[in-house]
This record gives sequence, structure tokens and C-alpha cells, in this order.
Amino acid sequence: MPTTFAMSSLHAVIMAGGSGTRFWPASRAVRPKQFLPLAHGKPLIEATMDRLLGLCPLDHIWIVTNRKQARMLPKLLPGFPIEQILVEPEARDTAPCVALATAMIAARDPLATMIVLPADHVIEPVAAFQQMLRRGAEIAKDNATLVTFGITPSFAATGYGYIECGQPIDSLEPQALHAVRFREKPDSATAGQFLQHGSFLWNSGIFVWTVEAIRAAMQKGSKELAAAYDQMLAGRQAQNPGKVTRAFKRAPKISIDYAVMEKAAKVAVVRATVQWDDVGSFPAIEAIGVKDAAGNFVLSHAGASLLSCQAAGNIVYAEGKRTVALFGVKDLVVVAVGDAVMVCPRDRAADLKTLVEYVKQSGRTDLL
Amino acid sequence: MPTTFAMSSLHAVIMAGGSGTRFWPASRAVRPKQFLPLAHGKPLIEATMDRLLGLCPLDHIWIVTNRKQARMLPKLLPGFPIEQILVEPEARDTAPCVALATAMIAARDPLATMIVLPADHVIEPVAAFQQMLRRGAEIAKDNATLVTFGITPSFAATGYGYIECGQPIDSLEPQALHAVRFREKPDSATAGQFLQHGSFLWNSGIFVWTVEAIRAAMQKGSKELAAAYDQMLAGRQAQNPGKVTRAFKRAPKISIDYAVMEKAAKVAVVRATVQWDDVGSFPAIEAIGVKDAAGNFVLSHAGASLLSCQAAGNIVYAEGKRTVALFGVKDLVVVAVGDAVMVCPRDRAADLKTLVEYVKQSGRTDLL
Repeated sequence: MPTTFAMSSLHAVIMAGGSGTRFWPASRAVRPKQFLPLAHGKPLIEATMDRLLGLCPLDHIWIVTNRKQARMLPKLLPGFPIEQILVEPEARDTAPCVALATAMIAARDPLATMIVLPADHVIEPVAAFQQMLRRGAEIAKDNATLVTFGITPSFAATGYGYIECGQPIDSLEPQALHAVRFREKPDSATAGQFLQHGSFLWNSGIFVWTVEAIRAAMQKGSKELAAAYDQMLAGRQAQNPGKVTRAFKRAPKISIDYAVMEKAAKVAVVRATVQWDDVGSFPAIEAIGVKDAAGNFVLSHAGASLLSCQAAGNIVYAEGKRTVALFGVKDLVVVAVGDAVMVCPRDRAADLKTLVEYVKQSGRTDLL
Repeated sequence: MPTTFAMSSLHAVIMAGGSGTRFWPASRAVRPKQFLPLAHGKPLIEATMDRLLGLCPLDHIWIVTNRKQARMLPKLLPGFPIEQILVEPEARDTAPCVALATAMIAARDPLATMIVLPADHVIEPVAAFQQMLRRGAEIAKDNATLVTFGITPSFAATGYGYIECGQPIDSLEPQALHAVRFREKPDSATAGQFLQHGSFLWNSGIFVWTVEAIRAAMQKGSKELAAAYDQMLAGRQAQNPGKVTRAFKRAPKISIDYAVMEKAAKVAVVRATVQWDDVGSFPAIEAIGVKDAAGNFVLSHAGASLLSCQAAGNIVYAEGKRTVALFGVKDLVVVAVGDAVMVCPRDRAADLKTLVEYVKQSGRTDLL
């Protein structure tokens, strides 16, 4: 059964490096967004892992993360094989991260197909997600192409990158389209045009490709990245971790989108058939929980609760045995976690980086 | 030296029964407003005590409170004689409270002069306060009158009772006036007229009288109250606490203002020469602390701190090792104490009773 064989060579790489400053003070350096219980009470990274099981065996799943988070992972994911946690020697954006993971997989299986996806998205339902990725893996192998997944826009979002789509790559495959162009986060007017036009999809940040195809695309997009990748692979094959680390540090500090995707000769976009949410800031958690009668949303964990009186449209995130009481306030985000309380208007929540920067400048790195 | 003799028969009664719902969740049933560190980091009741020392000896100071708070007092005021803490058998407003304290004092010294004052005001400076009360005590004795202290209004307050003042009681005493009439909390227009008129003072809730004078005024104002007082005194003299308790419970549930002051034949009003603040709600704490550059006020205790970024006009009360971070919000009250966080607009803070009532109705008496 060739299909079974194909599945057995499918790997998945969870990119878990983000710090999630837009969820401060719920998210901290040692407890980034993907560790928060935003997936129906479960940490996002655990839900991401659960979504992948059934698609590939546990020893084909890799997590790339930083040193601090790597230390926390065994507690959060007790069954996960520790040797499949890849620690980035330093933060160098996503291109070196992908190169590192690809080298580790290639050293084990040069013909592998690999999924690359962020740790901190909410995607449902699981069955549709797995079916979509299986189909993407087949397209990636059959066409030796990079495959990405596009989300049909539901509004003129300015917070996402877009992919302009062309013709189907195959008349039998109407949901798999040629990627014509990657477009960065647009301004509001441009986003409106994209939405009108109909052939622009949101870039989900989920990819599938074969080891061979991504190596070729690195060579085309960034010779420095390809060279660093080759050194990482050689280092791994020689069981020389120092060589892998040195090669990683020489790789260009750039995103995989800029370094490779936008310069690739052939990219296929599969129109996603799932509900997708990148949970970009506090207001997004409204989509993944329940509201009270006055339209206040609360995500409480470990015993926290909300009491709202003459208050409406607020978003509360609280953890631990505590109560948040709102009286007469509207459209606020209120966060109470550990040693910090944060209050901001919900229309400023996407800009929370500004506050985190201020906290840093105030010398309160203990809070980050 | 007759003056020294007069001073030695001066007693003071601190009324400490209030629950201070307008400071929830900083104030709770077992930790009412007078226990909060609102007097430059010191609990209000401790500052009230300090203000009285020098005016009368410690064994002439009495605290009337409820059972719960009585249990907390020895920890808060370690040097205070426990037998001078008078426990109200039940909450029956201020008239029975005054009768109880008067009976205790009368049993020891029937010719005593007594000060009655709330535990939870901020009054400064101490020297002026003591001088004002000494003068009040002399007037009370010399004229056998009830003496109250009036605050010159600084704005058209609707939250205070007013005293309409007449002629000086003595041409040599221009600051001691006849009380013409007590006026309840006025509406806004009436308050404006009072302010214009010039002869209306705020009722500070501080009184001085002799035991004899208040007994006579009780008899005139409320025969039931006077009868209950007589029974309490007899019970005390007979060392029969059960009799005191029964008499207290038979006393009319009414305030001393309604029951006695408003019906008294002779009341003198001494124009206060102190800064007085009854710290009625969270916005009042602004007057007793410091603001940051953007006009945010923080009262922090036991390690709490405020970080404000693009936020202005907010009032923060925080206790314990925690940080309140405000981002882009205006004119809010944010309270973080123990297991509760409370957020409301500052112009709703005076109405916090509504929230406390809601908390009660929600079955969360554990938070009260």
C-alpha cells in the first residue's frame, strides 16, 4: 500500500518560538502564548500536538523552540520524546528554524515530506485539518512543489499576509491553486480590494513540502540559507552538535516567507476547509469561549471567575483563585494572572507590544 | 489647676462599626474601611487613635465596634486595653452606640466630658485637631450644651449633611455658633444655595458633650433611647452584662443625629480649623497621596506598584506583591487586593454599594 508508506514518511514541525507579547501579562517569557490554555482550557501547543497525532506518529513530530521554553515543555507535554525538541541556539526568525528542522528530518529520512506549522493557532475540526494536510502532502509530493494553506478572508483584515491565487494546478484539483504572489499585511483600502477581488487568501503560515523541494527552494531563494542548511545536515550526520549550532548562527536572520516562499518557482495554495484563528490578541479569545448575558467574555482558568454589574462588551482573562468584578465599564480588556493585573481598552489590545516595551523600559523585566 | 482636672475627665469614643462597602474589594466584612492603610500608609483607626493621644489618656479612649471587627482590633492596636473595646450586640445605627459608650463612661465618671467621633476620617494637623476639641470640651461644659464641629464647605457637596448656623453663642467666641437647623444631604441646587449663603457648614460627625448634657438631650429627643441608656448604665453598675445587652437591643434603631441632635434645645457648632476628609469613596484617596506624571494616582501597600502607559486620570489601589499595568485607559478606578480585582469608572465609584449588593445577590458572600 503506497499510501501507508507515504504517510509513514510524513513529519511535522511545530514552530514554538514566539513570545506572544500581545497576551501579556498572561504570557511571559517562560510562559508564551502557546502555553496558555486558549484551546478550550488546553494549552495551544498541546492542542496543536493532538491535531497532528493520527496524521504522523509521535516520533515524527518535532518542536523547534528556544532554550527557556524547551525547559518547560517536558512538564507540559510529558509523553513527548525529548530528543525531538529542537532548541534554537538564538532567535533568528523562521528561515533558520525551518532549515534546522529540515536538516534533522533529512538526516533520518531524505525522502520525507514535512508539515511546518505554528504552535499557537486554533484550528477546527481535527478531521478536516488532517484531511486537508494529507491532501497537501500528496500535492507536495506529486508536484515537487511547496504547498501552503490559504484561508478564505471573512473581512478586510490588515493584520494578515495575503496570497494572490491563480489557476488550479490541476483541473481535477480545484481547491489547489497556483500562488501568483505573496502580499504583506495591507493597509485598510488594499485589504478591502483584496476582499472584493476574491482571489486573495490569508496566509495561514502552515506549509507542506518534501525535504528535496525545500532544499531546492532554499538554493533558489537564499544561497546563504541553503549553505547553512547543508552544514546543519552534515553536522547532524556527523553527530557534531557544535557544527549544527555554528551553521545555525551563520544562517541569515530572515523569515521563511521572505527567504524562500516569495522567491520559489512553484508554490501551490490549498484553500483551507477548516476554521482557523491565529488568536492574535485578547479580543480573539471571544471566538473560543462563552459570553455572559451582557456580552462580557471571560476566559477563566484554575478557579477564576467574573462578576459583571452594569458592564458590557468586556474581555476578561483570569487565572487562579480570584474574582474579577466589573462595574459600569465598557469594552475593556482586563487580565489578572499571577502578580500582574492589566487593563486596556479592547481597541488597543492589538497594540499591547507598546505596553510591553514600556514595561521593559521601566526596568520591570521581572514582569516579562 | 482646674484645666488639668477638666482634661483628666475627658473621654473619647471612636465609632468603628461601619463596613465601608464603598471601598470594596479593599474593604471586606472582616477588614472594614477604618482598617485600610488610608492614613499615609497607616490604618485610619490607628491614625484616629494617635490623634486622640495627648488629648486624653489611653484608658479614657473607647472603641465601639461589632463582634467581627472587635476580634481583629488587638492585632491592629496591640497596646489598646481590651476592656475598652465595646462590642455592639447587634447593628442598631449610632444612637444605641452612643448610649452604650455613654453608659460605660458614666459608670466610671458621671461628670465626664466625652468626644464622639468616627474611626475612618482623615483629619490634619493633629495639634489643631486637639486644640479644637479642647475648646469644644470647654464650651460643652461651660454651656451645658451639645457641641458639634462644622466644616466650611469648599464645594456644593451633595454627599454631606449640613448645619445651618446662627449667631455666636458668646461675643467672645466668634467661631462657636448656635446650630439653627440640621439639614440632610441636599440635592445639587440646594447645595449650591447653601454654599452661596455662607452660614451652612458640613456636619463632620464629631461631637463633644458632658454625660449629663447628652442624658438630658436623650430624654428630650427619644424617651425610649433615654430609658435604654438608663438600663445600660444600671446594668453596667450592677456588673450585669446581660442586662446591658438586653437594654441595647431595646434601644430604637436610629442615628444619634435624628434621635437627639436635631431635637436638642441647645447645640453649638464650632467651625473646624482642620483639614477634614471623610474618605467617602475611592476618588477621595487622591487627596492623601501622590500622582504620576500622567495624573494617575496609586495607593499601593505591601509591595504593590503601578505601571501606566498612555493612561491618565486613573485611581489605583493595590496591595501585596503585584503590579497593576494600565494601557490607554482613562478615569478608571482599579483595585487589586487579595483574591479580587475591581474595575469601575471613577464617576461610578461613589455608587459602589450597587456592585456590592450585586455580589451579595450573586451568592458570593465569600467576597464580602
